[in-house]
Amino acid sequence: MSEFSSFDDVRRVLAAAASPDSTAMAGAQDRNGQLTKPPGALGRLEDLAIWYAGWRGMARPLIEKPQVIVFAGNHGVTAQGVSAFPAEVTEQMVQNFQHGGAAINQLAKAVGAQLNVHALDLDRPTADFTQSPAMDDGDCLAAMQSGWDAVDRTADLLVVGEMGIGNTTAAAAICAALFGGDAADWTGRGTGVDDAGLANKQRVVNEGVARHAATATDGLDILARLGGREIAAMAGAIAHARVLRIPVILDGFICSAAAACLLKTDARALDHAVAGHLSAEGAHGAVLVALDKPPLLSLGMRLGEGSGATLAISILKGAIACHSGMATFAEAGVADG
Amino acid sequence: MSEFSSFDDVRRVLAAAASPDSTAMAGAQDRNGQLTKPPGALGRLEDLAIWYAGWRGMARPLIEKPQVIVFAGNHGVTAQGVSAFPAEVTEQMVQNFQHGGAAINQLAKAVGAQLNVHALDLDRPTADFTQSPAMDDGDCLAAMQSGWDAVDRTADLLVVGEMGIGNTTAAAAICAALFGGDAADWTGRGTGVDDAGLANKQRVVNEGVARHAATATDGLDILARLGGREIAAMAGAIAHARVLRIPVILDGFICSAAAACLLKTDARALDHAVAGHLSAEGAHGAVLVALDKPPLLSLGMRLGEGSGATLAISILKGAIACHSGMATFAEAGVADG
Repeated sequence: MSEFSSFDDVRRVLAAAASPDSTAMAGAQDRNGQLTKPPGALGRLEDLAIWYAGWRGMARPLIEKPQVIVFAGNHGVTAQGVSAFPAEVTEQMVQNFQHGGAAINQLAKAVGAQLNVHALDLDRPTADFTQSPAMDDGDCLAAMQSGWDAVDRTADLLVVGEMGIGNTTAAAAICAALFGGDAADWTGRGTGVDDAGLANKQRVVNEGVARHAATATDGLDILARLGGREIAAMAGAIAHARVLRIPVILDGFICSAAAACLLKTDARALDHAVAGHLSAEGAHGAVLVALDKPPLLSLGMRLGEGSGATLAISILKGAIACHSGMATFAEAGVADG
Repeated sequence: MSEFSSFDDVRRVLAAAASPDSTAMAGAQDRNGQLTKPPGALGRLEDLAIWYAGWRGMARPLIEKPQVIVFAGNHGVTAQGVSAFPAEVTEQMVQNFQHGGAAINQLAKAVGAQLNVHALDLDRPTADFTQSPAMDDGDCLAAMQSGWDAVDRTADLLVVGEMGIGNTTAAAAICAALFGGDAADWTGRGTGVDDAGLANKQRVVNEGVARHAATATDGLDILARLGGREIAAMAGAIAHARVLRIPVILDGFICSAAAACLLKTDARALDHAVAGHLSAEGAHGAVLVALDKPPLLSLGMRLGEGSGATLAISILKGAIACHSGMATFAEAGVADG
């Protein structure tokens, strides 16, 4: 499993995905109450540990094999002059990932995560969505399949990141189509366009959303019409992790837009995911509110590549280290309040 | 150096402490601008890396030897019924630290930090500050000296944490004395007192501040009259790190109160420090505003032990990993915008 031949296949897989293990979660909750600390004193670390325990099916889990996957894609909408960088930079940055020189290489190494890079048909950009659908359903499904297949079934934590010149424009269009409102509500400066560039991006987003409004009505249609291969691949990988019960830390604006397409497809599609950070890009905060996912970090990052979520792996690792490594009051001979 | 025989000795040491290395800082700023990312896309990680480079005197620094020191002390003010836990728990938790069972053991291990624990005269609690000064100047100086001496001169990053039943009351009294306002502005629930317990803590803080208002007028006097040995030791360690140019990550409410005593003593005393996290305890947010230190993390933690700051070591490590490990545009052959 799974070979997707239609969006209905994706919907069926998500609808059939398992819930977290309630026994493991209850065991983790019980253990948490016995650890040598005042009740609640580790704040969100406690919630994270119990959530992670449920998805892993172990009351006292470990994080031993986190995986970070970076997907790269090229966007026809760059013809509209939406980015401060030329489209060639997508390919150049893929080389940089492969040679170990990018931020994500350093961060993945720092948190002990395996890093995989998948470049998706870089020589075949998606169509300019102001002119036609970015992808037809088959292209979108193929990209989702690439993401699905990229997940290491033995991983115990997943981060998906992206590289794609033009993709903040695609993500803004996805958000505007999914959540409504004007392009100005969802469009940010990406790698750093000026005021005129921002106005141009907003024009492009409005045109794209208007062009496909009639046919792009659910999450996966919107993903195909306005998204990109790397965005569809992120959605496919997050969906596979949901099925495999591998917890996911979501990255910034583009990753969250990909995730939002799944959430609009199935209300439980992101139950296995937390938000790694609040990005400084555009309307990421509004997307996280729509996803009902408060971020773990808020450090003004807006790089993509999975960088914010990968940094947040260290927070989840800290939570699990405390939960599974601490002594109980009884073990330590400490008076319990 | 240094044997403190008076508070004036501390003031002199702080006044003579060196600035960060402006050449290293400029070199780091220059390098930051050449790394393969859009300008500013790593957000606060970039500021952290440049700040750290300046203090370490290297444009491309590493973090290889972080040190976490936990100081423990007992407080006579527990006679006023200010804590949800009995005073014996201070000693029991020191044993727990020494046996590796506490949260700080797991977190220090997770971030690769050396952990040292110093129990300060646990069998000799400070005096109840509602009745007399918590410490005389000599006791306070001796505790500061213990903190000073506990710093590993070869460390390249320092976190100081604490354990001391009753010490959120002492820290609240320090803040009320340093910054003014009513006890209610500064007093929190500590390990978890109920509403009646909180009202009692506020009474105790008000009484203590009122009793010593005439004699506790500067930061070090306030530290002695209202603080505790572990709080004075934290101040001593932070001061030594300032002199040694070892960057410090501040922990929560009690650590910040200790740091605030230094800041009131010398306006540059905390230039080498960042705030690791916003604690859920009491008025920590207001203390951080007074220190002008925005927190790196905000996860609802309120455990002490240095736990929040130690978790934040992973953020600083991520920042330095990116700064010192990434390829430049020229090295990677990536088009620079």
